[in-house]
Order: sequence, then C-alpha cells, then structure tokens
Amino acid sequence: MASKTLDDLFHETLKDIYYAERQIVKALPKMARGAQDQKLKAAFEKHREETEGHIERLKQVFDIIGKRAQGKTCPAIDGIIEEGEEILDEFKGNPALDAGLLAAAQAVEHYEISRYGTLRAWAQQLGLKDAVTLLQQTLAEEEKTDETLTGLAVSAVNTAAQKAA
Amino acid sequence: MASKTLDDLFHETLKDIYYAERQIVKALPKMARGAQDQKLKAAFEKHREETEGHIERLKQVFDIIGKRAQGKTCPAIDGIIEEGEEILDEFKGNPALDAGLLAAAQAVEHYEISRYGTLRAWAQQLGLKDAVTLLQQTLAEEEKTDETLTGLAVSAVNTAAQKAA
Repeated sequence: MASKTLDDLFHETLKDIYYAERQIVKALPKMARGAQDQKLKAAFEKHREETEGHIERLKQVFDIIGKRAQGKTCPAIDGIIEEGEEILDEFKGNPALDAGLLAAAQAVEHYEISRYGTLRAWAQQLGLKDAVTLLQQTLAEEEKTDETLTGLAVSAVNTAAQKAA
Repeated sequence: MASKTLDDLFHETLKDIYYAERQIVKALPKMARGAQDQKLKAAFEKHREETEGHIERLKQVFDIIGKRAQGKTCPAIDGIIEEGEEILDEFKGNPALDAGLLAAAQAVEHYEISRYGTLRAWAQQLGLKDAVTLLQQTLAEEEKTDETLTGLAVSAVNTAAQKAA
C-alpha cells in the first residue's frame, strides 16, 4: 500500500468539508424558518448565501489539486446538524427556541472554523498559495458569522428567552 | 405541556457536554497511543487529565441547578470522535498520521469551546454566578489546549508530514 501523505490528508479533509457545506446549505433554510427573531432569521438567510460561495471556493480548491469536487460523509457535521434539528423539534413554540438555534449554529461555525483553519495550514505547508487565499477568505467569513451570532446571543435572544421564562 | 425556558435549555446542554466530556476522556488515551510525536502524545495525556477536572466542574454545575449529573447522547461529539478514529485507522503508520490526529483534536476542542461559550453566556443570563466561574475556567483551558495544538501543528507535525512525503 502506498504511503499516505499530507496531500492525501488535505484531499480527504477537503471532501469532508465539501460534504459538510452541502449539508449546511440544506439545513440553514430550516433554521431560518424556525427562528422567531427577525435579525436571527436574516443572519441565517445571509449565511446560506455565503455558504453557496464557500462551496464554489471549495470547487476551485479541488481544481487546484487536480481532483474532482466530491464529498465524503462527515459524521461530525451530521451529528451537529442533528442536534440543531432536535432543538427545532423540542423547543418549537417555546421562548428559548432562538437561544437554542443560536447555540446550534455556533457549533456549526466552530466546526467549520476548525476545519478551514486546518486546511489553510496544510495548504501553506504544501505550497498551494491560491488555495491558501481561498480557504482564508472562507475562514474569515465563518469567523465573522460566529461573531455576529455571539452578538445576537448576548443581546436580544437570550434576554428574550429569559424574560419569557 | 409546560413552556420550555432558558433553564431547560441550559440543563439539556449541560447533559450534552457532560456526555461529550465522558466520551472525550475515553478517546484521548487512544489518540495518545496513536501519536508518533512525543510532544503531541504528551499534549493528549495532559488534556486527558484536564478533562477529568472538566467532568468534576460539570458535576458542580449540576449541583448548582439542583439536578443529578446525567449525560444525554450527543451525536455531534460521537461524529467528531468517529472521524478521529477513522484517521487513526486510515493513516496508521503513515507520515501524515499526527497531522490528522491534531486536526481531529482541534475539531473536538472547537466543539467544546462553542458549547462552554454558550453555557457561560446562559449562566450569566440566569444569574448563576458560581456556574459562570466554573464554566469560564474550563473554557479557558479548552482555548489554551487549542492554542497548544495549533502551535504543534504549525511547527513540528505538519513539517514532518510534508518532509516524509
């Protein structure tokens, strides 16, 4: 068996996040529909559009390494999204729903931040300069989204959830 | 059905991270055994010890809210750990194994950072001052571990993985 190298690991992890982004783009409209707060709804809708762009960038990275854009089942994102859907079910119509949706969305963002941070570091090691730029652009957007969600969580949503309690 | 509030959400999420920490404490020795780099091995071993402390702190938080310490299956951490185990299998004996283990461990840390950040914010909203302190202590340790792993990733491990390629 051929020795597996950082190139292989980069390729495998690219397939993992490609699958993850495609699951996220499907999950976000459900979260937007469920959200009660208008700002949170808007944040989910905006992030869905951004996620389309992330998928396009990943396709470009596959191009750079001469591979076909292809996903690989990622149990981590499946689990994270499943928890978000549980919140939607269990807290539907309840004052704490938005706080729960925010928490679920932040878990998604953190997973992505971790993956893009790793991929960017590996692209640097592998001398894939154009890939570094693309991955950095998406990483910056994921970090910005996480900050936006933290802002919403700290201000409106948690307070509303508590007041309604 | 009684309305579900932020208190319920806090309790549910506490059960989620309690389950997650107990899975992590079981997974870390496998990762330590698999790691080739001595510093990485040591980092996993140190974090296993810290994780025991995180579990103890969570038990104190359960006490604060007057509930029994109890886990609830968390598909997110199960998925994240499963991906780490796949890396151990697929990259065993290969130069890129440590880089893959580092990435898996950072995905775990980011999940925990997200969860503890959320729980700390909710504890603040709920006026649970002692819980805020306990959750903040663990959050700080998780962030420190993530930084340590990034340091190892950027320096030794990725370079080794590439040189061996």
